[in-house]
Amino acid sequence: MSITSTSRTQLSASKLTRSSLSNSHLIAFVSRIPRAEIQRWLIVLNELLPDNDVRLFDNLTAQQKQLCTLAVVANPDPAELRQLPNLQWIHSTWAGVERMLAELPAATELCPIVRLVDPTLAYTMAEAVLAWTLYLHRDMPAYRLQQASAQWLQRPYIAAGERTVGILGLGKLGALSAERLNANGFNVLGWSRHQRSLKNIRTFAAADGLASMLAQSDIVVNLLPLTNETRGLLNSARFAQCKQGVSIINFGRGATVSEADLISALDTGIVSHAVLDVFEEEPLPARHPYWSHANITVLPHISAPTCIRSASKIVAGNIQEYYKSGRIPEAVNRQLGY
Amino acid sequence: MSITSTSRTQLSASKLTRSSLSNSHLIAFVSRIPRAEIQRWLIVLNELLPDNDVRLFDNLTAQQKQLCTLAVVANPDPAELRQLPNLQWIHSTWAGVERMLAELPAATELCPIVRLVDPTLAYTMAEAVLAWTLYLHRDMPAYRLQQASAQWLQRPYIAAGERTVGILGLGKLGALSAERLNANGFNVLGWSRHQRSLKNIRTFAAADGLASMLAQSDIVVNLLPLTNETRGLLNSARFAQCKQGVSIINFGRGATVSEADLISALDTGIVSHAVLDVFEEEPLPARHPYWSHANITVLPHISAPTCIRSASKIVAGNIQEYYKSGRIPEAVNRQLGY
Repeated sequence: MSITSTSRTQLSASKLTRSSLSNSHLIAFVSRIPRAEIQRWLIVLNELLPDNDVRLFDNLTAQQKQLCTLAVVANPDPAELRQLPNLQWIHSTWAGVERMLAELPAATELCPIVRLVDPTLAYTMAEAVLAWTLYLHRDMPAYRLQQASAQWLQRPYIAAGERTVGILGLGKLGALSAERLNANGFNVLGWSRHQRSLKNIRTFAAADGLASMLAQSDIVVNLLPLTNETRGLLNSARFAQCKQGVSIINFGRGATVSEADLISALDTGIVSHAVLDVFEEEPLPARHPYWSHANITVLPHISAPTCIRSASKIVAGNIQEYYKSGRIPEAVNRQLGY
Repeated sequence: MSITSTSRTQLSASKLTRSSLSNSHLIAFVSRIPRAEIQRWLIVLNELLPDNDVRLFDNLTAQQKQLCTLAVVANPDPAELRQLPNLQWIHSTWAGVERMLAELPAATELCPIVRLVDPTLAYTMAEAVLAWTLYLHRDMPAYRLQQASAQWLQRPYIAAGERTVGILGLGKLGALSAERLNANGFNVLGWSRHQRSLKNIRTFAAADGLASMLAQSDIVVNLLPLTNETRGLLNSARFAQCKQGVSIINFGRGATVSEADLISALDTGIVSHAVLDVFEEEPLPARHPYWSHANITVLPHISAPTCIRSASKIVAGNIQEYYKSGRIPEAVNRQLGY
């Protein structure tokens, strides 16, 4: 896949010629991510799709905007999408698309949106779930506070097998996370909207199942997508169903956890610690009370960063398949929101 | 194994009678650990060894001290061991015995010392190695500092497979730790005094092998026992052989790492972070510079705490086997120190 700078220049020259031919396709890249990341995406996608021309929205002429039938997006500006009236489908480079769905202009409402399903992403997420579960399991927040006051105190050790982790959401991320925790000795429970079956994992479903799972979990990990059903799901009523002193890990979406209710549950001791990677507003505002709360670990949305190297191969593969067979990958269900 | 309080009282009464008979054995428990832990050990050992009488040194008469042929010890006072002149062997409830060997009175120099080899301990240590490797791998120290100043900054993600962890010491603890890291996606190297062979792990030996392994490792984990050869092993000369910005985890013994050299290597950036669970003096003195160093994580010797539940079964099993067959488990090699 590596192309020397000479051959890349030749490639660009030949693409400029071919982009007016019918067997070459112009693909819009629409994004509000940092410029350096956009550049990396454009370079790798053009390397992987040598017969096509993936071009940043800003660099499209008015006529080219009319010609574009496919857009690759990463947090796109809805105003820009509105200027691409002939899109057949949209490929997001992100796994979460709820922001896009909320912002989506009416003109593209019927256009299928394909989200990124990257096994590397699920692997990285499962690693993050394991890493921060071990962080809580091995009392790292407490030992950090002890270090700050030069306190030498050995806390009782509880074996992983006596620690129950409940996972909310059993899609690809949740299933792989559950499997990884199980392989590392934890007792794992899983909850999803509809009953699912996973090896070595006791699974629960629906509202009753949720109450039952929360009541048994020492650590609750949220990996649910944000939908009308999951917004505010973890609120005071749900915390009251948890074990006293439960820990919460939120690697799904910020708005699934009620911020005011979480702070209240931390202050009354129902929740002992929360590891939060996602927030209603990101970046988390500098004056937000989460930053300075002794029992909250704030992470800047890094649990499962998109790996451009692996994600671009998946996006390019889906696009090549579409131009070959006309088949669009499974699209987001707008009613469900994922 | 659970005994009601009534039957336990009957048991004690019958033991008092039988302790003067030849088929019942008096075993001394010699220890300087906290009183509550000593009590737990005495209870579980007497439950597991109902035909014997395990008794705290303080509660032995002068005559009984002469009769004792076996002592179970946990950080024993050498002055007390000196008052047990007829010991045939000593069973330590700890895996590390270097302090005991250093303090051991001449009178018991020829008495075999058996150290605890508990598979549960190796499992807990492997879990700790994985937990704090993930702590470094997922940049937890940096994100903690960022949280303290409300800084939202996503650091580049490096996949576990691109991260090399070098383990010093490939005994039971090291081998299981290497296996666990490997199962969780890390590239693992291992070093031991004599060449060993481990599945999926590139192994190194002797001084040349050590330099070669250090040069390739992003994270170096010390699990070596403390011996004349390992004292001060990780010093300025060794840090100079490491990759710039290496991280160190010391879960072996404190004196294997030169304190002054480590602080100097941290300050010049050769070492980026150190996770230390063991120290030359424990508890770590309150004024020690480690406590307040921004790039040192201090833990109070908790990487692999003895689990009395599992350890007592192993100690009791060894004792029962000895009284049945006369066989003493493999003893510590005093030349090697472990």
